[in-house]
Amino acid sequence: MRLLEERILKDGTVLEGDILKVDSFLNHQLDFSLLKKLGERLYEIYGDKGVTKILTIEASGIAVACGAAEYFNVPIVFAKKAGHKNIGDDLYTAEVFSYTKGKSSVITVSKKYISKDDVILIVDDFLANGQAVLGLKKIIDEAGATLAGVGIAIEKGFQKGGKELRDAGISVSSMAVIDSMSEGKIVFGESV
Amino acid sequence: MRLLEERILKDGTVLEGDILKVDSFLNHQLDFSLLKKLGERLYEIYGDKGVTKILTIEASGIAVACGAAEYFNVPIVFAKKAGHKNIGDDLYTAEVFSYTKGKSSVITVSKKYISKDDVILIVDDFLANGQAVLGLKKIIDEAGATLAGVGIAIEKGFQKGGKELRDAGISVSSMAVIDSMSEGKIVFGESV
Repeated sequence: MRLLEERILKDGTVLEGDILKVDSFLNHQLDFSLLKKLGERLYEIYGDKGVTKILTIEASGIAVACGAAEYFNVPIVFAKKAGHKNIGDDLYTAEVFSYTKGKSSVITVSKKYISKDDVILIVDDFLANGQAVLGLKKIIDEAGATLAGVGIAIEKGFQKGGKELRDAGISVSSMAVIDSMSEGKIVFGESV
Repeated sequence: MRLLEERILKDGTVLEGDILKVDSFLNHQLDFSLLKKLGERLYEIYGDKGVTKILTIEASGIAVACGAAEYFNVPIVFAKKAGHKNIGDDLYTAEVFSYTKGKSSVITVSKKYISKDDVILIVDDFLANGQAVLGLKKIIDEAGATLAGVGIAIEKGFQKGGKELRDAGISVSSMAVIDSMSEGKIVFGESV
């Protein structure tokens, strides 16, 4: 998606360790008009799949999910990271290793909000090693729900997540795929 | 706002300790169409104040902010809770005590995203003791920016936050104000 690629080139910063900092529009400051464009594109791809819920993980994923909900008109469910009170006992859980934070965490979704009748679109801001999506996929599987596909803002194509998910037969649609960013130069691969 | 009050009565659950559980539409599962209605109402109130940024705190606040950004068409900035890498060094910080979690945490906003020229609308899902809003207000003051007002989905009117903020001359607009919820019965006060 050219619009997102252009924005990454304009406002993104490459830091050491293959970190792409896009906190001016995606991870700290949010450009919701851009996120709606991503949502519109996701609706072009998955709008006929009978999606009943959009599933993501707090925090940045929530904004991407809102952009998608604008078009899908279905509820969003965001998985919570550990440490919340008041979420109840009847939970789906999955362990997710974050390479950014260097540790595992447990994500939880209340069993009330995903059922076997749901057709689910997973969305997230980044796809790198695929741990977050695999955690959400595990929860969907436990619920007996159907995964319609995975919509990602920025995929790090040089990391393993996208390939592993696609090899497992999952439809992954990334709005921008970064094939490399060595020496600060961002090279895009094919995206939707 | 009758629409939100009705939704609270329909889907909210009162738990012991004056906890209102609204995770079917505001805190875990999200009804974005409802959040846009809240945003539209906030725009009626603050649309002529020259708002340049919407400021909130992760995680649930982000969805409320997206609903408002739909109408204000300005960037959202969400304050991060401690523990994030990659946010940089040049930060505004504030300490926020969460009664729900029973502990203090530090929230941070990059200095890049709030300047003295900004006119800021704070939004959040809940207002109870006002700690989160006071933390955000401290950050706005440090930046030398202007606070246009505070837009809240649900205010616990029987807790001190709303009164303290209004007594300090801050414009607080809550879409639903709960005056009491003893014995599970929710009584609403005056809201916008």
